[in-house]
Amino acid sequence: MMTGGARAGEVWAGAGFGAARLDEGMWPLNGLPAAKLAEHGFTPTAEFLTAMQRAAVLFPGASGSFVSAEGLVMTNHHVGSDVLSELSTPERDLLVVGFTAKSRAEELKCPGMTVSIVETITDVTTKVLAAVKPGMTDGEAEAARKAAIEGIEREATAEARKQNPAEVAGVSLRGEIVPLFNGGKFNLHVKKIFTDVRLVFAPEGQAANFGGDGENFEFPRHSLDCCFFRVYAGDKPYVPESYLKRGITSDDGAREGELGLVFGHPGRTQRLLTMDDLKFQRDIALPSRLAFVWRQEIKGQSFVNRGPDELRTGTDGLLGWANSRKALTGQFAGLHDPALMAGKQLVEDRLVAAITKNPEWEAKWGDAIGNIAEAIEESESIFAERALWNTRGSGALSTAMTLVELAHQLGKPEAEREAAFKGPRLASLIERLGADRPVHAALEQYGLENFLLRVLETTGGEYPPAAQMLAGKSPAGRAMEIVSGTKLMEPKAVKALAQGGASAIEASSDPLLFLARQVFKQTLPLNERFEKEISPKLKANYAKLASARFATLGESVYPDANSSLRLSFGKIIGFTERGVKVAPFTTFDSLLAKADSRGKVNRDFELTERWQAARGKLNPATPLNFVLTADIIGGNSGSPVVNTKGELIGLIFDGNIHSLPGAFAYDMTQNRAVAVDLRAIREAIAVVYGAPTIADEIGK
Amino acid sequence: MMTGGARAGEVWAGAGFGAARLDEGMWPLNGLPAAKLAEHGFTPTAEFLTAMQRAAVLFPGASGSFVSAEGLVMTNHHVGSDVLSELSTPERDLLVVGFTAKSRAEELKCPGMTVSIVETITDVTTKVLAAVKPGMTDGEAEAARKAAIEGIEREATAEARKQNPAEVAGVSLRGEIVPLFNGGKFNLHVKKIFTDVRLVFAPEGQAANFGGDGENFEFPRHSLDCCFFRVYAGDKPYVPESYLKRGITSDDGAREGELGLVFGHPGRTQRLLTMDDLKFQRDIALPSRLAFVWRQEIKGQSFVNRGPDELRTGTDGLLGWANSRKALTGQFAGLHDPALMAGKQLVEDRLVAAITKNPEWEAKWGDAIGNIAEAIEESESIFAERALWNTRGSGALSTAMTLVELAHQLGKPEAEREAAFKGPRLASLIERLGADRPVHAALEQYGLENFLLRVLETTGGEYPPAAQMLAGKSPAGRAMEIVSGTKLMEPKAVKALAQGGASAIEASSDPLLFLARQVFKQTLPLNERFEKEISPKLKANYAKLASARFATLGESVYPDANSSLRLSFGKIIGFTERGVKVAPFTTFDSLLAKADSRGKVNRDFELTERWQAARGKLNPATPLNFVLTADIIGGNSGSPVVNTKGELIGLIFDGNIHSLPGAFAYDMTQNRAVAVDLRAIREAIAVVYGAPTIADEIGK
Repeated sequence: MMTGGARAGEVWAGAGFGAARLDEGMWPLNGLPAAKLAEHGFTPTAEFLTAMQRAAVLFPGASGSFVSAEGLVMTNHHVGSDVLSELSTPERDLLVVGFTAKSRAEELKCPGMTVSIVETITDVTTKVLAAVKPGMTDGEAEAARKAAIEGIEREATAEARKQNPAEVAGVSLRGEIVPLFNGGKFNLHVKKIFTDVRLVFAPEGQAANFGGDGENFEFPRHSLDCCFFRVYAGDKPYVPESYLKRGITSDDGAREGELGLVFGHPGRTQRLLTMDDLKFQRDIALPSRLAFVWRQEIKGQSFVNRGPDELRTGTDGLLGWANSRKALTGQFAGLHDPALMAGKQLVEDRLVAAITKNPEWEAKWGDAIGNIAEAIEESESIFAERALWNTRGSGALSTAMTLVELAHQLGKPEAEREAAFKGPRLASLIERLGADRPVHAALEQYGLENFLLRVLETTGGEYPPAAQMLAGKSPAGRAMEIVSGTKLMEPKAVKALAQGGASAIEASSDPLLFLARQVFKQTLPLNERFEKEISPKLKANYAKLASARFATLGESVYPDANSSLRLSFGKIIGFTERGVKVAPFTTFDSLLAKADSRGKVNRDFELTERWQAARGKLNPATPLNFVLTADIIGGNSGSPVVNTKGELIGLIFDGNIHSLPGAFAYDMTQNRAVAVDLRAIREAIAVVYGAPTIADEIGK
Repeated sequence: MMTGGARAGEVWAGAGFGAARLDEGMWPLNGLPAAKLAEHGFTPTAEFLTAMQRAAVLFPGASGSFVSAEGLVMTNHHVGSDVLSELSTPERDLLVVGFTAKSRAEELKCPGMTVSIVETITDVTTKVLAAVKPGMTDGEAEAARKAAIEGIEREATAEARKQNPAEVAGVSLRGEIVPLFNGGKFNLHVKKIFTDVRLVFAPEGQAANFGGDGENFEFPRHSLDCCFFRVYAGDKPYVPESYLKRGITSDDGAREGELGLVFGHPGRTQRLLTMDDLKFQRDIALPSRLAFVWRQEIKGQSFVNRGPDELRTGTDGLLGWANSRKALTGQFAGLHDPALMAGKQLVEDRLVAAITKNPEWEAKWGDAIGNIAEAIEESESIFAERALWNTRGSGALSTAMTLVELAHQLGKPEAEREAAFKGPRLASLIERLGADRPVHAALEQYGLENFLLRVLETTGGEYPPAAQMLAGKSPAGRAMEIVSGTKLMEPKAVKALAQGGASAIEASSDPLLFLARQVFKQTLPLNERFEKEISPKLKANYAKLASARFATLGESVYPDANSSLRLSFGKIIGFTERGVKVAPFTTFDSLLAKADSRGKVNRDFELTERWQAARGKLNPATPLNFVLTADIIGGNSGSPVVNTKGELIGLIFDGNIHSLPGAFAYDMTQNRAVAVDLRAIREAIAVVYGAPTIADEIGK
């Protein structure tokens, strides 16, 4: 927890509008900070970067990497956990017992799972920006950019497919534009997408999540937070263009003081926010989100406490809420750290001063901060309502909402539709909607009841749209009625409606769809107002500030994270906490010591029987977890850590508690990324889980 | 969870303004429903009632009973748990290992603990109401009643002490007025108060709370939720005027179909609320309280997850939040049960129709519902602010706030002070403030930090009073600074200030007191407005409605619960849930079966080693928990259950899930009180805990 006060604002000044500090930044691979890397004695070649780029795998909202010539993919247990939960049965809860495929034949298909890599990266900024003509309003400029982006994506997709005509089942190519610097720069990523993904290995949740919530975002740490999948193409293990190899000798591996490179997909940072926007996040957005996650976590706990089935089907979702809660708590603390805010104020003041001094800049960019403040005020006026209606809490309701939105979008001319509802994305949306996933009726009913309860908590019982959703029933009664009446728990029925298009969806009298329509009636005007009025204004003016930053700081700046591929880097070194030095490595030995002491009163620290049985066979000195100064954030989960030789040495799974304000700023003194050491992964899989073949394949 | 819809409003019509249903009501002992009891074939004598009255013990916010001639007192584990937590040390956590005094010498003194019984009950309504003269405003009438009440209390206390001059250490007498029916009736209770209370026996939390949060407020249930204390007077076991005896033969005990009598102190019901008030509770008050308890429960979990010390010091508070959350969740569901609200509307409509028909009534009471609506609207306008500033989350801050309030009250002439700040109550307040209790600095610091965070979540960072409380620090930094700087963690320092009075308190520059003054500045105007404007209006008009109810329904009505002694009664019978019959009793056998099945994956259902070791020696057929239709609520925890012969048969510890809307209404079809069977308590203490002497003393 940050204590502020004592630290000067200058510590934080790098973060945000200032130039990046040495290990700060999540850098696009075609915009690396060569001088900083050189300061670490490292100058990557183009071949090196392409090899890393193509080995780096994108999971939905997370990261991974190819680690064998036969399509083996490494990521975190907490990245794979939703799949583990889905693949579980009353007889075999994979989150509890783990999973080890003893042969290729035993590898478990993961329905609906999609991963991808980035084949090529091209800067197309000029092409996109050429579409915006002088004199356009913010809204017109936004529409022009959108049209240009869609054109480039379509063309790139067609081109890529032409060059690789021999597509096999489970593999496809697609062009995607990645906007950077709030629209100051645009990269085209041609992606290779894989849809045949199978589960190879997962430890028990108890080992992956050792220490539970108390240890989450903390260090020292003792988690085996890994999970392995295999990508298939044409029903055969996929041979990747590139994969990460481990070092050859037994001395290879992470070392204190060494530079670690993290190739991954950091999800979202907001480091370029103005002070007004930061205060909006601090005073409005974060408190609202915190209140929501507290509620959802308690509701999730109440559900899993009902019985064994609920424990199995509800645990993964519950862990997600707990993780969000701890992350948001750290962000909120960060924004109430006076030193962080002083640092942010300092860099904003410097930028404003620089703009004001230059009449040309003042004319172009001088109104940006004020315009952003206006847009935030507008956003604030609909914030609570948007927050209410845009959250669901039930997967089935989300699906139904997507169907209603699909019908709505299909009713418009293609040019006016959102990007997700046309071209190849529309096809893959329909495919995803109809994917064969297990649906747990009790979990859905609980989620629906809680959605209705939350509506009532917020609007009260007399608000007409709320009363209409309840239809004269109690929330529990209405949820039960909907779940008993709906056909949309069957993926087949969803698929039929999705394929049937607007007319089929609109003709359906399914009670869940009926509720979704009622909710959509609430969200539509709010979201349209945001998308058409507020968001373009924010984008246009943040783009002005991005230009001002380029002008004052040159190329020493990096764009906010947005789930696109980045390199983060930093030294494997410890940190100091409340005056005490924290070493950068933990070991199997310290794991066993912790289990022996804290496991007695707290089950989160207990060893499973399998680990108890194997403890004598483990090398106590094997490094288990380690930290490095690399600047990462949620979405980096599952990223590989490689050394400057490109050798795989670890697996990112967390940041320490000081990394949590990283959404807004980076502090190299205490902010650390946390990784599982590759040696521990391989030894545990071989010794504890009795799967030496898998252990050997990793990075071979 | 209630499902509404299917049930007609008529089911609920008894609750509230209507006449009470057969087993509905929490009846003052001088206003029992003789006809209803007679319907159960029971006509209690005056001697019987006095014996029960004097055996019934009031714990702070809960209930208990004398169960031996040597001052043994029975209550719930969850009533004693805060004392158990306070008496715990890092070496011996009583909540985990339990406690058994092997001799009188081993009984543990409980500092600051006070229990009491009601010696006599006298109706003083005429005397109190005579103070109110025609033409007085609501505020003047309130002040006149207050003055009359204080006079009667003072006189009664003096009189009682005169009649019992030979007071011994640890025992005192006091007169207290209990208002009923929102001021329609006033009883004078002369109470005997005991301050030397010692711990005799407590099971492990695991046995008392078997099944954890998932089973809380549920039935079937398997909890040994009991705890035993002994009252001392003059350092010797106190010989009570009356205590509860068990039956003589082994056949004695609770039986299906039998009438059970519950003498206890139900805390608070709100059954007489108008529809406007119910909607205020449903739409404003309950959502706000729910949001608060979700937050506090999560914060409490995060604290206990930090380490073993935090687990020991934070668990009791955490269980309290969890319990509140489940209770409030049930209340909220109840108010969104259309059948319940329809029932409430029905009785309000009937009452209004009766008033309207009678011109004299209309003139006296016709404006009551409208006036209440007005008062609620005023209350609503300051609700969020009052809710924020009147909650603390840190015991030390609460103590500091009481000191600040003490200085404020002592600065006023005695006649204008609140009742708690004059006469014998002032003395006992000062004594309580200075009582020697363990203070856990880490827990207090966490509580303070969370108080500050909550202020920031609510007001934002720019609100001047909030910014002043932070004094330029982060919430964590400010909390650390206050806890390191304050002397008020020492009971001695608190005592010195409390005894030093207004001048000492005002002169202190203690940083915690400094914060308390800042908070008090926020609460004072809000609370004064509520106490002087809103509350008198509510009371005056609810009193009108009470009179209207008497006029229409005669004596068939009962007053809302307010922690004063009441009789609830009902049959020991099961209920039907989702079409399935639930039997009224569980047994040791069903406990073991549940532990064997659910204990495998959920630690809440594990047996402790002591129980595992003893399981073979238990009689599987011994009844463990049972339910009855008695109408109870929070505060009844620890109440004895006796049969019509006055024999002790059980110990109330909970209501089932259907009892939760009981705050507002009573539904005899499913609402059940849950008790531990006396036979299980005695057998477990003898067999599992190896304390046959204690087991034998209970009810001998």
